Amino acid sequence: MDRVYTVLEHVIQAWTALHQQQPLVQCMTNSVAGNYVTNVLLAAGASPAMIDNPFEAEGFTAISGALSINTGTPTTEQMQAMQISAKAAFIKNKPWVLDPVGYGAALPWRSRLVEDLLAFKPAVIRGNASEISALAGNQAGSKGADSTVSSHDMYQQALPLLDKCECVAISGESDYILSQQWDTIIQINGGSYLQPKVTASGCALGALIAAYAAVTTPTIAAIAAHLHFAIAGKLAYQKAQSVGSFNVAFMDEIYRLNADTISLHADLNML
Amino acid sequence: MDRVYTVLEHVIQAWTALHQQQPLVQCMTNSVAGNYVTNVLLAAGASPAMIDNPFEAEGFTAISGALSINTGTPTTEQMQAMQISAKAAFIKNKPWVLDPVGYGAALPWRSRLVEDLLAFKPAVIRGNASEISALAGNQAGSKGADSTVSSHDMYQQALPLLDKCECVAISGESDYILSQQWDTIIQINGGSYLQPKVTASGCALGALIAAYAAVTTPTIAAIAAHLHFAIAGKLAYQKAQSVGSFNVAFMDEIYRLNADTISLHADLNML
Amino acid sequence: MDRVYTVLEHVIQAWTALHQQQPLVQCMTNSVAGNYVTNVLLAAGASPAMIDNPFEAEGFTAISGALSINTGTPTTEQMQAMQISAKAAFIKNKPWVLDPVGYGAALPWRSRLVEDLLAFKPAVIRGNASEISALAGNQAGSKGADSTVSSHDMYQQALPLLDKCECVAISGESDYILSQQWDTIIQINGGSYLQPKVTASGCALGALIAAYAAVTTPTIAAIAAHLHFAIAGKLAYQKAQSVGSFNVAFMDEIYRLNADTISLHADLNML
Repeated sequence: MDRVYTVLEHVIQAWTALHQQQPLVQCMTNSVAGNYVTNVLLAAGASPAMIDNPFEAEGFTAISGALSINTGTPTTEQMQAMQISAKAAFIKNKPWVLDPVGYGAALPWRSRLVEDLLAFKPAVIRGNASEISALAGNQAGSKGADSTVSSHDMYQQALPLLDKCECVAISGESDYILSQQWDTIIQINGGSYLQPKVTASGCALGALIAAYAAVTTPTIAAIAAHLHFAIAGKLAYQKAQSVGSFNVAFMDEIYRLNADTISLHADLNML
Repeated sequence: MDRVYTVLEHVIQAWTALHQQQPLVQCMTNSVAGNYVTNVLLAAGASPAMIDNPFEAEGFTAISGALSINTGTPTTEQMQAMQISAKAAFIKNKPWVLDPVGYGAALPWRSRLVEDLLAFKPAVIRGNASEISALAGNQAGSKGADSTVSSHDMYQQALPLLDKCECVAISGESDYILSQQWDTIIQINGGSYLQPKVTASGCALGALIAAYAAVTTPTIAAIAAHLHFAIAGKLAYQKAQSVGSFNVAFMDEIYRLNADTISLHADLNML
Repeated sequence: MDRVYTVLEHVIQAWTALHQQQPLVQCMTNSVAGNYVTNVLLAAGASPAMIDNPFEAEGFTAISGALSINTGTPTTEQMQAMQISAKAAFIKNKPWVLDPVGYGAALPWRSRLVEDLLAFKPAVIRGNASEISALAGNQAGSKGADSTVSSHDMYQQALPLLDKCECVAISGESDYILSQQWDTIIQINGGSYLQPKVTASGCALGALIAAYAAVTTPTIAAIAAHLHFAIAGKLAYQKAQSVGSFNVAFMDEIYRLNADTISLHADLNML
């Protein structure tokens, strides 16, 4: 219990730092998620910028606090930009988050891109259970952007991925966060069953991890972002029980989160 | 009246099948509509995936239940992907929906693409009255994405298009659905005058037809999707009378639709 | 005071003309803003069309009432389309608005594009204080898409830009509008501190200036669009105090604005 309390203290410090520093976060995301990701990051206190062309990618990574890469709908130009910025982040020692949307046998082009990007050592890899399972070398089923595997059933399979990054975050009914530095796995509960019915939730979560990573360690960043979403989702569902109004309430709660709501509603276990 | 009752029974079966099977629907849409289309399909029970690059298009069509192509803001790469996937759908006998946004003399590049795509036999062609009229060979006026023709005045002009596809669906103040297989034309009423004030409504409707087409015949799919929208729009307007809140309520009602609301609110005529 | 009254009369005439004529507005904007921009223009009474490919750009500008160019997330193809349409607007004497998102030393590729576009004489240049300051030749700080300079501190620095366009509009806590034709600078107050927390607000404002410019002079268009936003933002904040619900209420108020609310709530000074 003491250890959970210490983690929550770090999360509250990270939330405070995010609001004080308003870090510049370079986002490269898919065509479905751009507006939603940006609104979530603004609501959470960060300063997002969608710079995803190969001609400005390198210079912009150099001045950003963190980088978020999401492979949902890559184009040839965007893919080039992703490689340039991931490399720049690696060289400049900037934290970056890889969200390998669609990774798996059905989508070989982006899957090769994802594998190439791993050479540039993301701070955090985050995805749903299907994507993370496939990236860890398993033959997981996946259905487009949606997972067909339960996070609970596979999170231990993700441990080998800690060779490639400092932290792995798996979203699902419960979220699981694995860290190179820690001897426990973090489980986070909360949210709402409506969350997967709102597109780009996962994409925005990945970008929010990057925003937190600009102001704290990768592991605390992943925990903070997942708690931010889990608490906002839980409180939003108390106000709205269908997808349109839930989505509005969720954005309201992303903005409203503070130290008190974190302390009161965080549901976090150490396994 | 008996025939209307039979159609509604098929629609309710299709709605049930959509929720049970959650079919994977490959969507290729415009940059304005991506987020909205995906949210509507998730709310309606499908599993949408926006795979629109030429390097993964063919393989993904092969594993999808249906394909939706919308020509709103084509790029060179996306256009290539559309041709590849339409061909793959044709060869693999997957139902696909063509929404020829902007078809007409003012936009010749996409209009040639649309004509090329017709060779791959869409299951359903859907559009507003201007687009469908132009595609049927008339010199209809159009103004960008908005129609300048009434669906009521032109739906009979669309009959020759049944040479190119199994079903033609025209949206407007009343919607009209023409089928190769049926000896009547279906008219659907409902919705709200606010619907055309929400961008990407038509685009989402086209993708929803594709989702239904993964689980039923093209004609029932078109009827089901139009009723889904007409009922959700009618119920949303009872709750919200300006465009922002209407749009939220509309998404709520897309999610809430069920057999009871279909039976109670469907307004469908056979002409 | 009399002069303010005369300006408001022109604004109300412009609002009326926008609803009566529903001008076709060609929009070229960024991947984050497309949906939002289109919804704002529809709610405000215009007919937006996102035609941003180089193969259809020229012909479409020729039939549009106005053109809006926003450099938020350019691609190679979109950039070509922007140059073609800006040139076409110049030749055909169509009003066009330049929103140089991200202009400044950190983003050299788009900055060169912006400088090239200036040759085609935009009717209005609009941006935040950082972008406008940089474009006027100052070494302003900027952080991605967000301004780090106050509009109040720099609006007089923008006067040299009137060599390049008829009107310069700077958004911020107060908005400032500078005109070649007028001997005063217009200051507009209102809105809400939540506005910068909603992404693409500025992008939509730029497109709304273009919509008004299709039916009135560039300077009145800029004033009308800024008042439209300032009043809608003020009224929305009375209904909703967090970002998600504020955004919904804002769209409602964009749609609801009329001559009465303009007269009642306009807060406009001549400096």
